[in-house]
Amino acid sequence: MKVLLIQGANMEYLGFREPSLYGSTTAAELDQVLMKDAAGLGLQLDIMYTNVEGEAISAIYRAVRDKVDGLVMNPAGFLYAGYALRDCLKAVPMPYIEVHMTNIDARGMHSLTASTSVGMVTGLGVESYLLALIAMKWKLEGGGGK
Amino acid sequence: MKVLLIQGANMEYLGFREPSLYGSTTAAELDQVLMKDAAGLGLQLDIMYTNVEGEAISAIYRAVRDKVDGLVMNPAGFLYAGYALRDCLKAVPMPYIEVHMTNIDARGMHSLTASTSVGMVTGLGVESYLLALIAMKWKLEGGGGK
Amino acid sequence: MKVLLIQGANMEYLGFREPSLYGSTTAAELDQVLMKDAAGLGLQLDIMYTNVEGEAISAIYRAVRDKVDGLVMNPAGFLYAGYALRDCLKAVPMPYIEVHMTNIDARGMHSLTASTSVGMVTGLGVESYLLALIAMKWKLEGGGGK
Amino acid sequence: MKVLLIQGANMEYLGFREPSLYGSTTAAELDQVLMKDAAGLGLQLDIMYTNVEGEAISAIYRAVRDKVDGLVMNPAGFLYAGYALRDCLKAVPMPYIEVHMTNIDARGMHSLTASTSVGMVTGLGVESYLLALIAMKWKLEGGGGK
Amino acid sequence: MKVLLIQGANMEYLGFREPSLYGSTTAAELDQVLMKDAAGLGLQLDIMYTNVEGEAISAIYRAVRDKVDGLVMNPAGFLYAGYALRDCLKAVPMPYIEVHMTNIDARGMHSLTASTSVGMVTGLGVESYLLALIAMKWKLEGGGGK
Amino acid sequence: MKVLLIQGANMEYLGFREPSLYGSTTAAELDQVLMKDAAGLGLQLDIMYTNVEGEAISAIYRAVRDKVDGLVMNPAGFLYAGYALRDCLKAVPMPYIEVHMTNIDARGMHSLTASTSVGMVTGLGVESYLLALIAMKWKLEGGGGK
Amino acid sequence: MKVLLIQGANMEYLGFREPSLYGSTTAAELDQVLMKDAAGLGLQLDIMYTNVEGEAISAIYRAVRDKVDGLVMNPAGFLYAGYALRDCLKAVPMPYIEVHMTNIDARGMHSLTASTSVGMVTGLGVESYLLALIAMKWKLEGGGGK
Amino acid sequence: MKVLLIQGANMEYLGFREPSLYGSTTAAELDQVLMKDAAGLGLQLDIMYTNVEGEAISAIYRAVRDKVDGLVMNPAGFLYAGYALRDCLKAVPMPYIEVHMTNIDARGMHSLTASTSVGMVTGLGVESYLLALIAMKWKLEGGGGK
Amino acid sequence: MKVLLIQGANMEYLGFREPSLYGSTTAAELDQVLMKDAAGLGLQLDIMYTNVEGEAISAIYRAVRDKVDGLVMNPAGFLYAGYALRDCLKAVPMPYIEVHMTNIDARGMHSLTASTSVGMVTGLGVESYLLALIAMKWKLEGGGGK
Amino acid sequence: MKVLLIQGANMEYLGFREPSLYGSTTAAELDQVLMKDAAGLGLQLDIMYTNVEGEAISAIYRAVRDKVDGLVMNPAGFLYAGYALRDCLKAVPMPYIEVHMTNIDARGMHSLTASTSVGMVTGLGVESYLLALIAMKWKLEGGGGK
Amino acid sequence: MKVLLIQGANMEYLGFREPSLYGSTTAAELDQVLMKDAAGLGLQLDIMYTNVEGEAISAIYRAVRDKVDGLVMNPAGFLYAGYALRDCLKAVPMPYIEVHMTNIDARGMHSLTASTSVGMVTGLGVESYLLALIAMKWKLEGGGGK
Amino acid sequence: MKVLLIQGANMEYLGFREPSLYGSTTAAELDQVLMKDAAGLGLQLDIMYTNVEGEAISAIYRAVRDKVDGLVMNPAGFLYAGYALRDCLKAVPMPYIEVHMTNIDARGMHSLTASTSVGMVTGLGVESYLLALIAMKWKLEGGGGK
Repeated sequence: MKVLLIQGANMEYLGFREPSLYGSTTAAELDQVLMKDAAGLGLQLDIMYTNVEGEAISAIYRAVRDKVDGLVMNPAGFLYAGYALRDCLKAVPMPYIEVHMTNIDARGMHSLTASTSVGMVTGLGVESYLLALIAMKWKLEGGGGK
Repeated sequence: MKVLLIQGANMEYLGFREPSLYGSTTAAELDQVLMKDAAGLGLQLDIMYTNVEGEAISAIYRAVRDKVDGLVMNPAGFLYAGYALRDCLKAVPMPYIEVHMTNIDARGMHSLTASTSVGMVTGLGVESYLLALIAMKWKLEGGGGK
Repeated sequence: MKVLLIQGANMEYLGFREPSLYGSTTAAELDQVLMKDAAGLGLQLDIMYTNVEGEAISAIYRAVRDKVDGLVMNPAGFLYAGYALRDCLKAVPMPYIEVHMTNIDARGMHSLTASTSVGMVTGLGVESYLLALIAMKWKLEGGGGK
Repeated sequence: MKVLLIQGANMEYLGFREPSLYGSTTAAELDQVLMKDAAGLGLQLDIMYTNVEGEAISAIYRAVRDKVDGLVMNPAGFLYAGYALRDCLKAVPMPYIEVHMTNIDARGMHSLTASTSVGMVTGLGVESYLLALIAMKWKLEGGGGK
Repeated sequence: MKVLLIQGANMEYLGFREPSLYGSTTAAELDQVLMKDAAGLGLQLDIMYTNVEGEAISAIYRAVRDKVDGLVMNPAGFLYAGYALRDCLKAVPMPYIEVHMTNIDARGMHSLTASTSVGMVTGLGVESYLLALIAMKWKLEGGGGK
Repeated sequence: MKVLLIQGANMEYLGFREPSLYGSTTAAELDQVLMKDAAGLGLQLDIMYTNVEGEAISAIYRAVRDKVDGLVMNPAGFLYAGYALRDCLKAVPMPYIEVHMTNIDARGMHSLTASTSVGMVTGLGVESYLLALIAMKWKLEGGGGK
Repeated sequence: MKVLLIQGANMEYLGFREPSLYGSTTAAELDQVLMKDAAGLGLQLDIMYTNVEGEAISAIYRAVRDKVDGLVMNPAGFLYAGYALRDCLKAVPMPYIEVHMTNIDARGMHSLTASTSVGMVTGLGVESYLLALIAMKWKLEGGGGK
Repeated sequence: MKVLLIQGANMEYLGFREPSLYGSTTAAELDQVLMKDAAGLGLQLDIMYTNVEGEAISAIYRAVRDKVDGLVMNPAGFLYAGYALRDCLKAVPMPYIEVHMTNIDARGMHSLTASTSVGMVTGLGVESYLLALIAMKWKLEGGGGK
Repeated sequence: MKVLLIQGANMEYLGFREPSLYGSTTAAELDQVLMKDAAGLGLQLDIMYTNVEGEAISAIYRAVRDKVDGLVMNPAGFLYAGYALRDCLKAVPMPYIEVHMTNIDARGMHSLTASTSVGMVTGLGVESYLLALIAMKWKLEGGGGK
Repeated sequence: MKVLLIQGANMEYLGFREPSLYGSTTAAELDQVLMKDAAGLGLQLDIMYTNVEGEAISAIYRAVRDKVDGLVMNPAGFLYAGYALRDCLKAVPMPYIEVHMTNIDARGMHSLTASTSVGMVTGLGVESYLLALIAMKWKLEGGGGK
Repeated sequence: MKVLLIQGANMEYLGFREPSLYGSTTAAELDQVLMKDAAGLGLQLDIMYTNVEGEAISAIYRAVRDKVDGLVMNPAGFLYAGYALRDCLKAVPMPYIEVHMTNIDARGMHSLTASTSVGMVTGLGVESYLLALIAMKWKLEGGGGK
Repeated sequence: MKVLLIQGANMEYLGFREPSLYGSTTAAELDQVLMKDAAGLGLQLDIMYTNVEGEAISAIYRAVRDKVDGLVMNPAGFLYAGYALRDCLKAVPMPYIEVHMTNIDARGMHSLTASTSVGMVTGLGVESYLLALIAMKWKLEGGGGK
């Protein structure tokens, strides 16, 4: 089972960006943790960081052509105005699970792309990603949602 | 570790209510699954159903007095106008994790109480509850969020 | 044919509440009239008053279990913010006809629950209820609406 | 007792227009049914179809001069922007009862003219008209509303 | 100097319509007064009543072809949604003065067509028309406005 | 018959201020014209210019104490946010007629104080004032409005 | 003189709830203070806490039947969406004085029920209640308000 | 293949109306051009001008009865508030293509009826009509849109 | 303890202004009552009336320099748009208590300055001022609020 | 005559993306059709696909430097928030014609960039592009719009 | 080159007002600094403080009559509702540069008068004024903006 | 002291883009002027142009890693929807000063990124950049803002 994880705009600065909100784990450290966790779940994980919405879109279409089974994404800075990204997610066949490290509702934010996901995990920091990987595994195995 | 699970307005009808959205697992069947899952996680789970917002509020204050460690809730019908419930959740000391079986964003709904939670799991059906219990366990053990 | 009539918040004060709007027929007198009219139509009528939205919801689910054939309701004070009630009405299988004694449009009010009804009768005072009972009888006999 | 029934914009197409919403009874068939029902109620019914809002207004002032006792109207296409019609209805002395074949609330529509009526019947298809005629008879005999 | 006066929707009912707002002078009586006043000012006055917005538009284009010098109008019921009328007034070359018998601001109303006029007189009842005729005379003689 | 004319904020700059909108008649020249016109109408006119809303309010209460019969005002710069002025006008017993030299509707502006006036004249430049004085004379003599 | 004091949703948690806003006086301590103060003012005070809006409504109708002279209420959590409560307050004959311990304006909140009160006291903590009792006494003796 | 072309409110004034926007081709000249172009495309064209929305509606239902194959319309002045026209267009079976001579987006306008069309051509002046006729021919022959 | 009382725009007209709302006590009579009441409370009261928002601001800064202990104000006409006054109140160190004679909520008004106050008393007529003086005394002695 | 055709975000997925809306013609097939059609019209066509708004902007400035005569674009995913693209289109000298395969009005969407175009063709699927090429040819030859 | 600097509402309290935002430089100290800086730039500076919007307006018209070359202003408390001031600034011929000590965007505020300025400097504390004086000098010498 | 200057979307077209707004200085000429001015101020300036928001974000993070001391940016086309850019600016430690060549307030635009800046200079054309460099120098030396 191949899973693509996209880290949206500003995620490259993780660990340095508002640590009181996002903690001090850096992007590199997070990647290491997630690669190990994914392996433990039997998932082949590919991680990509980008600050350009159109690059995320192109990567998703490439993943479709590469037969990737599932998509996990933290839209981060794309959550405000990622309309084109949302249209892309609506169009592709693979399941998408959205992740946020913080509770975006508590911060008065709303994710444009959330409506295209199977489900969402928010507010649990680094653990949000792990729960999303577990959920993706269940989903790909036939559970998770009606 | 004691955890209270509150099922909000209309959850009593689970299994019969719009099965294309919520599946056909009934409330009674769900309870059985969750009690077993909670036991497996070492959590002492208490489940309560109510259609009355004020009763949920009273139950939460009772849980504070009873030293319950964590709260998991599917606000269901309270998500629209549960302002008093939101104030209650903001006031109490124990961590709260919110659950929705469906992707509420995809249905154009927004949860008033979500802003008071530690985090939220949505869209994954019955599995949403299980992920929330895992998250609560991690949270009570010191992880989950910055 | 069994029909449940729910009188929403503040209807218990009928006859005393703003008589220039609602007339001086009391709740007790109205019940007597309606029981007689229902009998004349061959309907077995059950009348319930409540000021608590969640109690109305519970009563409706009970009616489903009791095989009640139709629901008539004056949501009264629930018309403003009865979101949970609206979700309940959307979920249950029996036909629902909404009643208002006054012309709520003329008073600048809009009923949240109206969208879930088969149809609505407004503005005709005590006679609003009688027309709703006639409509319910037609409905249950297969007419009323396309 | 003379009653005028106005069928607003697009009602001439009844029976052909979105039959899943409005049924397949044609305008001509409906007229026949209503003339018979009105006669049974002792009402002298006059039916008029128009797609032009101003013609409806002119007809209502003509009815005032002709001493018509009551007005029943399905504003249909005039419900969105019939401000001038609304002012007309507010000005004339005879009681007005509004009719809609469908549940306009369920379709997200709001009738501008409803606020000027004595009362309204919605959602019950062809039967909506019959209930309105019954209500009008009661009204003209002194009942219907406080 | 030829002047066209258009009386918009519902003005035909003047004298009977909400007399506490509009007084008891009837349309026929008003016409007589205005014809005399216009003559006194040296204006050749033509008066037209219509409840149909499109007829007012057609009359204005006819007036352009007939070389009418000025237009006075009480849009009445057209003030709410007379967008097409507004476009017409914006297009024609002759000066337009708008009249309202009541103070529409005090009634919470705003006239769509007012923005296309040279000027407006409101709130002074029957005298509003006379002031508008005086203003039109001045305007046609080269005064009235910068 | 004593009439007070108040020229609101920025009117002191008349003749220099956006002459394409307001013309090149200066404040001093306008005063001269109006004093002569008022005398011709048998009105004793008092003219006051102020840029301070509160000074206009004080002047109006002074006029009440001085038994001034009518008030004409061009609120000018007070039309946007003159809430306190509006409350003052609502409270005093003498009739108030509002004047604007330009067509404020055409400029997308709305006068807060207009709702408290007997009537309004707009868009006719210097002649707006003269029409307002004629209207005030009629009003004080018992005409102007129902 | 009998007075009912209703403490709305979440007031049961007083003393523990956001002490930086509400202070550390508990509900029980507050009751003791108020019973003594009321006695000093010659008022017979009855205090009720509830988290359920409908129970507050029922209590108010019960108070009407029990000839209670005045109502003091801190709507607390009901201030956001207490529409049914507002209708109830509008309907009953006894004077109602609203109390808030904090300055709700400073917190960006607006009370739905305030419009039905005789008057309101906000922001003065425990003393808000005492001032409301003084005001109620004056009101029942014929003062307080025009 | 029979096609009806409806020219909405104010189109009769074409050639005289704001020539900087609409050009100086008159309605009569345009008709001649279009009749010739339609003939060249093998379409039997019928052209109708009206300022009355309800007359456009009646004409469309007449066209349905006359088995007209396609409808081309410039709603012109009906684009703002043509709700009844929109409902009519939604109900009829023949394809509708909307035309605007100017770029209505650039003028801040939005067409109510556009949502009911197969497609739309805007901004290309007289050529907009010709492109619409070409598109209609393609559409009737089975192309144009998925 | 020195207290400044500011009476905002239009308060000078008290006793004459809408007596059905404000009563017939004049400003002079009110001052006499308040001076006596203040003396009874041991407060040295200074009363100021102004219709100019900027003068109220200047007076407040003067009071700061004069070591006035507390400020009571009825913003009256400044409640709508007194933004500058609000900023001033936010900046100064002395406690501010706001007073309204009427229930402004019931009149659909909202006070801009209320958010800067310690607390507010509304709706109790002349007695509103007295309650505010009592509250100010308590506040200056260390009570009133958390 | 050189024409640049830009296909905006998500157009690369054509043929696979929601085929019920967009048909099953792939991007590659569409390109072939358009190259042939353009050649037939005597236009030298250059086609570019991009998911990155800024790349579209850069391409347009490059086209200006390369003396391209006209621009045809389907903004696709850029239609929601392409403000920078809109500013670019407003600034460049060559005519721009906008294309949409679907009727965006029917889908509740509005194109930000449409206001900067000469004209627009929507809803006609693959044929939308062909009509736009015809229109561009006419435009470059001096016709198309006033 | 004569320059007028107006300090708007609440600026007199500088140094005492929210020092964490505005610093502790007093108005008197600021004046000294600016007089020296202006002299260094060859500008003859006149400084005026006022809390009354109308006084600022009067001062500006006086400056026009006195041939002042440029205006620098910190509207301060007038930024919220200074509509009359904005109209004044739009009317006068001399260039206006707006100054804010704080970053008003970061504080969620928007200046009504900014649209009438040549340019604006914000957020740089006392240095904001100095930059504005430099900019004014450049502007009066023919630079600063196209 | 190293300073990065970012020129946002569409700035590459400077000198050709709406010269009546932006002047005819080209991007290349501006760069030359600024490099010289920066050198005169002792600043080491790096200038970057991009039409892609994500590239600006990446450049800013690169600057953080390269120990750049200050950031000056004209967001240009990013000012409308640059949410991700705004989050980036909020996260990085170096001071940011925003520049606009035109008075964006006068053009009805609002900059999303302005709230994250230390301060802003607008409306002064090419000189806006120079003032921003002066301000940055002061800021880096410890002045500029409280």
